[in-house]
Order: sequence, then C-alpha cells, then structure tokens
Amino acid sequence: MTRGDASGRRLRLGMVGGGQGAFIGAVHRMAARLDDEYELVAGALSSDPGRALASAAELRVSRAYGDFGAMAAAEAFRPDGIDVVAIVTPNHVHHPAAVAFLDAGIPVISDKPLTRTLSEADDLVARVARSGLTFAVTYNYTGYPMVRQARAMIAAGDLGELRTIQVEYAQGWLSTDLESTGQKQAAWRTDPARSGAGGAIGDIGTHAFNLAEFITGLRCQHVAADLSSFVPGRRVDDNAHMLLRFENGAKGMLWASQVAPGYANGLRIRIHGSRASLAWAQEAPESLVYATLDAAPARIIRGGPTAGAAAAHATRIPAGHPEGYLEAFAQLYRDFAAQLRARLAGSAPPPDSLLVPGVHEGARGVAFVAAAVTSSAASARWTPIH
Amino acid sequence: MTRGDASGRRLRLGMVGGGQGAFIGAVHRMAARLDDEYELVAGALSSDPGRALASAAELRVSRAYGDFGAMAAAEAFRPDGIDVVAIVTPNHVHHPAAVAFLDAGIPVISDKPLTRTLSEADDLVARVARSGLTFAVTYNYTGYPMVRQARAMIAAGDLGELRTIQVEYAQGWLSTDLESTGQKQAAWRTDPARSGAGGAIGDIGTHAFNLAEFITGLRCQHVAADLSSFVPGRRVDDNAHMLLRFENGAKGMLWASQVAPGYANGLRIRIHGSRASLAWAQEAPESLVYATLDAAPARIIRGGPTAGAAAAHATRIPAGHPEGYLEAFAQLYRDFAAQLRARLAGSAPPPDSLLVPGVHEGARGVAFVAAAVTSSAASARWTPIH
Amino acid sequence: MTRGDASGRRLRLGMVGGGQGAFIGAVHRMAARLDDEYELVAGALSSDPGRALASAAELRVSRAYGDFGAMAAAEAFRPDGIDVVAIVTPNHVHHPAAVAFLDAGIPVISDKPLTRTLSEADDLVARVARSGLTFAVTYNYTGYPMVRQARAMIAAGDLGELRTIQVEYAQGWLSTDLESTGQKQAAWRTDPARSGAGGAIGDIGTHAFNLAEFITGLRCQHVAADLSSFVPGRRVDDNAHMLLRFENGAKGMLWASQVAPGYANGLRIRIHGSRASLAWAQEAPESLVYATLDAAPARIIRGGPTAGAAAAHATRIPAGHPEGYLEAFAQLYRDFAAQLRARLAGSAPPPDSLLVPGVHEGARGVAFVAAAVTSSAASARWTPIH
Amino acid sequence: MTRGDASGRRLRLGMVGGGQGAFIGAVHRMAARLDDEYELVAGALSSDPGRALASAAELRVSRAYGDFGAMAAAEAFRPDGIDVVAIVTPNHVHHPAAVAFLDAGIPVISDKPLTRTLSEADDLVARVARSGLTFAVTYNYTGYPMVRQARAMIAAGDLGELRTIQVEYAQGWLSTDLESTGQKQAAWRTDPARSGAGGAIGDIGTHAFNLAEFITGLRCQHVAADLSSFVPGRRVDDNAHMLLRFENGAKGMLWASQVAPGYANGLRIRIHGSRASLAWAQEAPESLVYATLDAAPARIIRGGPTAGAAAAHATRIPAGHPEGYLEAFAQLYRDFAAQLRARLAGSAPPPDSLLVPGVHEGARGVAFVAAAVTSSAASARWTPIH
Repeated sequence: MTRGDASGRRLRLGMVGGGQGAFIGAVHRMAARLDDEYELVAGALSSDPGRALASAAELRVSRAYGDFGAMAAAEAFRPDGIDVVAIVTPNHVHHPAAVAFLDAGIPVISDKPLTRTLSEADDLVARVARSGLTFAVTYNYTGYPMVRQARAMIAAGDLGELRTIQVEYAQGWLSTDLESTGQKQAAWRTDPARSGAGGAIGDIGTHAFNLAEFITGLRCQHVAADLSSFVPGRRVDDNAHMLLRFENGAKGMLWASQVAPGYANGLRIRIHGSRASLAWAQEAPESLVYATLDAAPARIIRGGPTAGAAAAHATRIPAGHPEGYLEAFAQLYRDFAAQLRARLAGSAPPPDSLLVPGVHEGARGVAFVAAAVTSSAASARWTPIH
Repeated sequence: MTRGDASGRRLRLGMVGGGQGAFIGAVHRMAARLDDEYELVAGALSSDPGRALASAAELRVSRAYGDFGAMAAAEAFRPDGIDVVAIVTPNHVHHPAAVAFLDAGIPVISDKPLTRTLSEADDLVARVARSGLTFAVTYNYTGYPMVRQARAMIAAGDLGELRTIQVEYAQGWLSTDLESTGQKQAAWRTDPARSGAGGAIGDIGTHAFNLAEFITGLRCQHVAADLSSFVPGRRVDDNAHMLLRFENGAKGMLWASQVAPGYANGLRIRIHGSRASLAWAQEAPESLVYATLDAAPARIIRGGPTAGAAAAHATRIPAGHPEGYLEAFAQLYRDFAAQLRARLAGSAPPPDSLLVPGVHEGARGVAFVAAAVTSSAASARWTPIH
Repeated sequence: MTRGDASGRRLRLGMVGGGQGAFIGAVHRMAARLDDEYELVAGALSSDPGRALASAAELRVSRAYGDFGAMAAAEAFRPDGIDVVAIVTPNHVHHPAAVAFLDAGIPVISDKPLTRTLSEADDLVARVARSGLTFAVTYNYTGYPMVRQARAMIAAGDLGELRTIQVEYAQGWLSTDLESTGQKQAAWRTDPARSGAGGAIGDIGTHAFNLAEFITGLRCQHVAADLSSFVPGRRVDDNAHMLLRFENGAKGMLWASQVAPGYANGLRIRIHGSRASLAWAQEAPESLVYATLDAAPARIIRGGPTAGAAAAHATRIPAGHPEGYLEAFAQLYRDFAAQLRARLAGSAPPPDSLLVPGVHEGARGVAFVAAAVTSSAASARWTPIH
Repeated sequence: MTRGDASGRRLRLGMVGGGQGAFIGAVHRMAARLDDEYELVAGALSSDPGRALASAAELRVSRAYGDFGAMAAAEAFRPDGIDVVAIVTPNHVHHPAAVAFLDAGIPVISDKPLTRTLSEADDLVARVARSGLTFAVTYNYTGYPMVRQARAMIAAGDLGELRTIQVEYAQGWLSTDLESTGQKQAAWRTDPARSGAGGAIGDIGTHAFNLAEFITGLRCQHVAADLSSFVPGRRVDDNAHMLLRFENGAKGMLWASQVAPGYANGLRIRIHGSRASLAWAQEAPESLVYATLDAAPARIIRGGPTAGAAAAHATRIPAGHPEGYLEAFAQLYRDFAAQLRARLAGSAPPPDSLLVPGVHEGARGVAFVAAAVTSSAASARWTPIH
C-alpha cells in the first residue's frame, strides 16, 4: 500500500504496547506530539485485549486493536493506514511485532534493545534489508543536542586521535529485591524470558555502548566483562564492569549498574584524544565540557556561541531554557519523520535525519550484550562483538 | 455561546500572534501539545494579515483570521468555536486582544507582562471579574515541579519564619546595542511604546518578582530601585538593582539584568527562614537545595524520595531524565485545561489547577514595574506596590 | 631601634591576642609559618595575664608578656626585638594595640575591621603616615590566587567597562540567639562595645566590600542600606541588603548575612563589564569563570594554562591540588614579609608585595560600616562613604 | 642513640632529596611546618653534592650533607640528631635511603611508591619489622578530613555491605611527549630505571588503589589490567584500565591516566553499598556526597553538623574556609608526630595517629603495580596481588 506524499499532513502513527500501567509508551507519545509531525491513529496498546481497547479509549486513539497481528493486517490495507508503527512493549515482543509490521510493509520505530537474542536481531536486519523499509531504534540519548555536538566535533577532528573512552550508566532503583514485590517494571526487566540474557547490561548498558559508538564514530571490537548479580536471588546481572577495545587503538571502560544508590539515570561519557577531551552527562545535558591541552576548560552550551549546526538541528528553544529528555526523544521522532516524508515523496532524506539509530545499531546492542555475557562467563576473557 | 462538556475531546485552542518570525508562539504551541489536552484550530497569527494567513497554512491551522477582532467575533458564534485563546504578541497588543476575547466570552491565556500600563491592567482585572471568565498569565516558571515543591514546603512551615529572599534574573544578550541592528526580539523589547515603561524590569524582572511571591506566599509591599541603561542610546532600563520589603517583615533583593555577559536565563531564587533555607535555579531546575540548621544540605530531586505531591503533580517522567522549560510551560497549559474542563462541566476545578497565575498576578507584575520606575526616579526611595 | 637587614634569617614576629580559646590567632600563626618567613618569638596572647603566660608556654613562645603595652615597650629596645607584630584580638583592642606598637616604631599586621569607629581609624591612618611604618590589614581573601587573577584581568581591560558588581557574604551560624548561650565568638561579635556599630556588616560585610574594591580597582562612593536584626534581642545587625554606586558609573549590590541557613562562608563576587564577566566563590576558590560575549564560558584554573603571573605569584603547588584559606592567608604574610625585608634592607619593595591591604583599606572598611549604618537609619537613603 | 622525650620541643627532621629543582620536597617541608611539630635541621637535599649544599644554605638548613649515607651515619650519633628523616627523592632512591636510615635506627617518612620492585619492598617490610622503627608512606590523600569521614562511615556500616567501588586518578600533563623536551618531572617518571615498571599506574594508580583500600577497609585481591602507552615512544604505561575484585565479593574499576586532557589531579572515588553510597573528589575535597536509598542525597561538609570525630581530628579551621592538599599532607606529618612522640615517651600512640599509611601499605602499592603489569601482559587475565 503506497500512502502517497505526506506533505501537508501529519504522519499517521500506530503503537504496539504502551497502554495502561506502561511507562515508555507515554514517552513515545509525548515525543511524537512535540513537533506536530505525527498523529496517533491506531494501536494495539496491550497484550491483554481488554486493556488494549480500554487504553485506546482513554487515549482517544480511534482505531483500537486487540493484538498487533490484526493491526498490521488491517492497517496495511487501509488507504489511510498508518505510515509507521512504534513498538514500545517489553523486550520479548519487539521481534514478533517488528516482523509483523515489516512483513506488512510498514516502517517501524522500535524501543531498545532491538531483540532478546542475536538470531532475532540478525533476522530483523535481514528483513529490513529485503524490505527496504525505514527502521528506527530509540537509542534516545542520541537525540540530545550536545550529543550531536560531541559527535560532530570528534568527526571534525577537534580531539585529535581518540585514546580513551569512559562511559557509564548508573541507577540505584534495583538495589533491593524489588522484583519480588510485584513492581511491574522490575519484574520483566529481571526475568530472562522477557528481558533476554542481559539485566543491567541490556537495559542500560546498551545505551552506554550505543552512545560511545555514536559519539566517537568508532566500533567497539572487544570487551572483557565482569557481570554481577549483587541482590540475592536476582536472575540477571545488576552490575557490569567492562574493559573495551575500539578500532584504531582506542580503549575504554564501561560501567552499568542498577544497584548504585544515589543514581537515577547517571549516563555519562568522557572521551579523551591526543589534543582535547569532551565530557557529557545526561542528567545535566545542556552543556559539554571541552578541554584542550593549552586553554581553560570551556563549557559549550546548547544555543550558545560555540555550539554548531549539529546541535542547532536538534534544538527548539534558546540557551538557558533547559531542554531535556523528552525533547531528545522527540528529536528521533522528528528526524525519522523527515526520513519517512522523503521516502513517501520519493526524495532523498536530509543527511541530518539519518543520524537516527537504525536496525544495525539495534543489532550491535544485542551483540554487545551477548559478548558481555560470554566474556563474563569466561573470567573476563577478551571477547569480540559479533 | 456555551461549548458544553469537553470530556472526551481535546480543548479547542485559538492563538493571537506567534506567526512567522515570532519566538514565544512556538513555545505555547509545544506546551499546548505536550499533554494532548488541546488542538490548535484557529489563529490570527500576525498583525500583518498576509503573514497571518501564510503562518496558519504553514502550521496547518484550519481557521485563519487576518486580525484578532474578526477572530473573536467569529469564534464566539461558532458551535465549535474555540474554548480558549492564547495571546502571544508583543506587550502592547496584550490588552486590546484580551479585551476582544473577554468581551466575546472566551477565556484567555496571556503572555506576560499582562499589559504595558497599570490602568490597562486594572481594566483587565475588572473585566475578568465582571465576566467570570478564567484567565491565565504565563508566568511559566511557576510550572516547574521544584518550584511547586518549594512553595509547598514553605507553606508547610519547613523553613520557619521567612527572613530573606534573594532573587535574580540575569541575561547577557542585550550587552550591546542589538536593537539598532534590526534584531526583532531586541527591537520591540527596548521600545517603550511596545514594551511599556520597563525594559529588563518588565521583560524578566516581573518573572523574578512573580516567582518570589509565588514561592513564598508573601506579598512584596515596598521596593527601592536603582534602574540603569548601561548601553548608550538604550531607551529603557537594562539593569535593575532593588531592595524589597515583604509583609511579615521579610526582606529581599532583586537583580534583573540583560547586560550580564555569561548569563542566558539565569533565574535563581534563594529563601532563608529561621529554621532552614531553599535554593533553586532555573538553568538546573531538577533539584532544590534544602539546608536546615542541623543537618547536611540535601538535594531534593524531582521524582526522588523526598519530593512531595505538589512536585509529582507537575511532572511526567521519572527522576534523572531531565524535564525542562517546555514541560514547565506545558504544566500551566495542563493545569489551565483542568480549570477549563471543570468550568465547561460545571464542576469545581481541582485545587492544584488553581496554581496557574491569573489576572491578579498579572496586574501585580505591572504594578511592580511601575513602582520600580517610580522609586528609581526618586533616588531609590521606598515605594509601595500599588 | 633599627633591626638591620633580615636576609638570611626569619623575621621575628610578635602577637597580641590569639591565646587559649581564641580562633583567628591560630590561623595567623599557621599563615606565618607556611612559607618559613617568620618565627614567633614574643606574645601578649591574652587580655588575661595568666592566660597570656600559659598560652605562651603551650605555644613555645619564648618571650611572654602579660599585656601588650609592656610588650611594645620591651621589644622596641631589644636588639633582637620583633620585626613586626600581629594584632589578632577582638575589634575593640585593635586600635589601642596598634597605637602602642606604632608608637614604639614596630610595623603592624592587624586583623579586620581596623577599628570600631571612624575616628579611631582616622587616628591610625595619621599615625601610620607620621611614622612611615608598614601596616597590613588582613583582608585575607585578597590573598587567593584567583582573586589576584581577577584583579589583573580587570586592570588589563579584559572585561571592558565595568557595569555591575554583585557581591555577597552569607553565613548561617547566627540564625539563632547563640550569643545568649555563652558562645565566645558569638558574644563579642554581637556586643557593640566590642565589635563596633556593625554586626554582620562589620564582621563579614567589610570583607565583601573590600573584595569588590580590590578586584575592580574602583572606589564605592555611595551606599543605600537596609540593615536588619532578625534574631529577637540581637543588638547589632545580622543581615544587610545594600545598593552600591561606584566611581565611573558602575553599580552593585551587596548582601551580608549571618542568618542564612546553609551557608558557612559564602563569599562570592560576580563582575560584569561591557565585554565579559568574571565570577568567583570563596568556597570553591581554585577557579574563576570567565564569560565573554562570543565564546563559551571558560574556567580559569589556578595553575592552569590561562592563569597569569598575578595568580602564579600567589600560589605554591600545581593545579588540581587544592590550595585554600590558609594559603591565601599566608600570601598576605608572605607579601608583607617582602615589604618588611625591603624596608630593613633599605630597598624598594617588589610591586606584587604592595597588594597587601594596608591602613587605608582598613579605614575604608570602617567608613563603609559607618555609611551603611547611617543609610539604614535614614530609610536606605544614598549615603557617601567618608 | 635514644633521643629522649620530645615533649616541650619540636621534632628534629632530616630530609633526603627535595633540593633545587625538585617539587615534592617543598610540599613535605610546608606540611611539616604547618602544625609546628617539626623543625628541619639536617639534609642531603640532592644527589649532586654541590647542589645539596647550596640548597641547604638557601633553605637555612643548618646541617648540610652531600649524601644520605653520610647523613645517616652522622645523625645517628649526635645527641641532638634527627628524630625522623623524610625521603623525597625519585623512586629509585627510596629503597637505599630508607635502608640507610633504618639501619641507623632512625624512623622514616618515605614518599610513594615505596620502592621500584617487589623485592625491595619486601626487604623494607622485613627491616622495619626487625628494627621496630616507625615508618610512614605519604599516601597523602588519606589525610583529607572527608576521606577519614568516609572510612569511618563505612567502618560503622552506614553503607551496608559494599558492592562496587569506582576509583580513578586522571591527569593530562603527559598527553604529549614531554619527556623528550627535558622536563625533569616527566623525564624520571617515564624512565623505568628510575620510576620502576609502572608509569601512570605507579605514579598515580597507586594513590587510587591505596585510597580504595583505605576508605573501604577491604583488600583488593585480584586485578585484570589493560595498560597502554598512547604517546609514541613512551617507555612506560600512560593509561591503565582495570577491573578489581575485593575480599567479601565487592568489585571495582580503576582508571589511571596521564593522557587525559582537562584533568589536573582528578582523583575521585565512589563506593556503593547495599544501603547507601559515598562519593568524593580530591579537587573538591571539602564535602562528601552521601546518598541513601530513601532520602535526598546529602552533602556532608567538613566542619558541618553531620561530619564526625574522624574528620574533626584531621581539620584545623571551620567549615566554609577551604582546607586543601597541603593541610591533608600535613595531617600525615601531624599524626606521625604523635606516633614519634609516643615512642620517644615510651607510651602508646593515640589510635587516630595510626591511620598514617606505613610500610605495609607501601608494599601493597608495589605489589599492585606488579600485578597490573603482569595481568596486562597476559591479556588482562585476573592476577592476584602478592
């Protein structure tokens, strides 16, 4: 079904998951609304059909489906069918839902990690290649203006040759056995059947890994990992200590933890080159500390005089009025809209829009988790990714 | 025209101003979209009729008007007319536009300062009282969760008796004679005919003043002001130094400046009582520093274990994923929606929704500017507000 | 008595005050020892003769005196008499002690404020002029490397024309009626007979005032002050809110408070010029934030690549190993030693050594307190200093 | 030679190294002077006899020796011989100098790392045991009040069971090939013959390692290390990435780098337990961030209401007047003075004085370097320490 040029109208969005009791679905919806590029018109908002329909009514979603298979089938044949679907379920549903929509010819925005297993990930890579459809994975931290700025500065050589990369994502909310209390977010994230083999390493370590590759433009080739489950009875890792080796000789460390009291979403990256360094922290995302060998450390501020075009592309308001998580998330939706509109119009997508992580980046994350688990089981032996 | 219960649908929003080349209009639109409570259906988006129509097409606003008078008249009589209008023009248009819509029986969201003059402000206060219509003034910083938290803590007596209030709003963008370069935002803000008697004191000093009264719950009774125009040729103040006296014996200082290099939107307030103090800064809005006499200073974090119900009401996502300016702005829209829906349903508005600043707070700001100008002209003599 | 060239030996230091139970005397002694320029050889360490002798024994001070008059007389005639005396008593003793030593021909290092009254201050100015003796007042914050850096940058024109100066010194330790508990430091500071007419304004406001004049090189000409005594029963001010006017049209605000919970020694200054701004805080003294109109704010770090000669002169160890309060205090002793050695050698003192505040700066502080008290009593009327 | 009770006098200090052109010697001297417990009376201040004598004259050290062997021999037999010697040479002299003074019956304060090799370290451990002499190693960061506070809190169980330890020491000064320019500090630190097998790992990694063991009270049992020499031609490591395993199941990461632009002395440690976490940074050493699972993160401030006895023991001035590196260094001298005085008096040393790192902690550091080098050569294989 060709939907035709979408200039002059909002893109029609569908959603799988994100109904009552869910968290990330509401984030996707706010992100989709912010720049007025989408309208949510269809949904299979829960794996429970009754809850799916009730959620749709509550959210004023006109076309409510009880399951994603029915939705993919129906939407594919409507003349006003959805232009794209967002999959915002727990991890184990990512693959079957993506398959359903790709097979129906509908582009996909998938939450991360892409899939639970490497074979599922490879399968999606192949299907995307065969279908030629656009596909996004919401490694949402790549949408922050100062992350874009960092990437552009490194690509321009401002840091010289990259030497070391220190990246971490620390949380404290799983410091106790929260999953045994029935807390829903904790329950599925610590259940290997739903989350995959990785616990913290999959849930947040993949974000840290993706951010390191996105900003540096380097592929991480080997990891040596020491995974732990500190909370008694926990079935997945809740802390990961890792050494990293990147192409071109850069080296790094990665720490992902969900048992670090005092941290909420402590994603932070520091990159050091032969000439300068950059540091960025997600909880204070509006600036980037840039230190060269021969000048005072400077704070590059979003919207400020030393922020460049890549940051400007990802921003909405002037400096000093903080943008945050939702705006960064929305940036992926905005950029992906440009890709979708170009495709519908038969034109080339604007280069900036291509920064949205896709199925390959998604598969990298799954491979990263697999390598970490393998390495840790082998006493932190250096293990290749893929 | 009664529009009927709006449950089950979005509120219909109109907009005056905010067309091509404007800044704050886009902010209002994002704020209105974020929580999915409004749809923008009508607009007189520019004082230039041609630009007004072109802007409407670009923004996919279906009912485009060339001027606000025609819009008020038409919308008042449509069965599907707007539920509320947002006025986002330069200051001198606030009063006539508000009059037009109030007279047409349509609730108003007005940008600040409310009007250019005290008599205009008094006129709007009277019209709102006569009409019984709801009216909001977008002192948007009151929408931040941690501002709400601070207000609630002070109301609960956590600080003891309030003694001193230090508030400031510093910017640097008018450090040079930007208005003579034709920059649009600078031009109207430094033109007394469009901005009113206050320059920095009106544009940003009113925000600082409102924030101090909002958080402390105290009225500022007298000011002693020293206003300056540091940039040669500037026709309004660009820096204000002020002493404040509040009811109940509290005292304060207020600094507003648009000639402070290094500041973007440096709005910051510190309040000290007999038992404890609070500090908050708009550029790092996610936490509040709370220091008591006998414990270590603590950082109360939005979404964290020590943030209360008032903050939770104004938040959307968990701690550590930064919310910012747009979310705070959206909070006013969200709370005002609750007021509007209650009114349309004939029910009492939820108490939290009443925190949105209204026409009285708007008039206080105008009176504050007048008192500051009067005091400064009289060698910083103590001058009452109103 | 001429003591002869002191090259090749330590300077002989005497001390008045600073015995058992005192605070600031120990600071002076550590400051004097740090750079090995002095040895403490004589003391009248308490106004209580018995405690004076016991303190001397405890501190291994060989020449112990029961009162400062006897000490001045004896030391003046010893061939190995002291080269300089440090007066570290409560405020009311500063004047008589300084007179005794000046009259005996002995240079003086006096703690601040110089005296309790303007007439006492004028008397010391006259005596210093008549005697030709060197005299230092320990406005110790001027000894910080980054304060020296700020002063040098402003003198070099890096900020352009100065426009606004925001300075504050906030403490919280007198938030309750501590003086009535018998706490010694609180007792004399809140007793006008011992502290003078100023409370917070004299104890810490003078530091803020001196710092503003020292860094900017501008004289403050007029003040408008609103002094308060928030703690019931307190006999001196514990909070000061002030507007300032400097020569050359710069304007400022000064806040001094001892009733601000959460503050220990919150001395902080921000200076804004037509081209750039500087900000410095005593509790994080190792860097200076420098923001120009067209670049990212930079952190000038002590010992770093962008710190200059003035800072280097006042530092001992490389960047990143924090220097603090004692080192800054010691800098005054070190610079004053260079003055004293030059005088004993009959040579010109090195220019950098002359930055130590002297009797004129001390008298300015006393005049500042007097003007603040006068202005506050006259409803914050603009009042000249001197 | 027994020197007798030293109460009533300063301890007599000798020094090996630290003459003209040296850095750390001056730090030791300031540290020794600060609390007035020592007087420097003898020195072999350089390995160049002429420079040794010239340096002694410049520093007014009365007993100047051309080499440390002569000094040890002479001082051992003087009735007024030194009570203790400080060894502040490059690493390769630590062992022979320490042997000379230990054999002469003189207690030693040695800079770190203790020795270049494990066998040298073991030899010193044995000699100290045989001699019964006191011995200190200046892991100076253990002297910071908030480091003492952290140690005491963990010992008291405030963090629950320790889980993870993140420690790092980053510098940027060796980002280029500084050693080939003739810079003295760079030259010996990158010369294996003088520095030992470790570069960054020995120079600063040992500080990080010691700090982790000191604060946690846990022994690190195994390391997996990836050492790099990023600067072409460099003969020792300039960056170390390491995984750590401690007794009791705690795990950690350690990063030591001298090629990280933007860092001066970025020593930082974070410790996370089952109930709470602590974070401390050397460049802002006056506070400790303490975060529990159910309260807002609090800043424990030196001298503040929540700092305890261990911190108070190591402090000199009230909160808010920053203490820094020299004071922390001085704390080791002060504590060691208490040990020496107790020994001379034949009494038991005060418990707090025993926190000064000794020869065992010195040997641990050498073993740590050896394990890191071994592990890195074996592809980051887990390697035991000792």
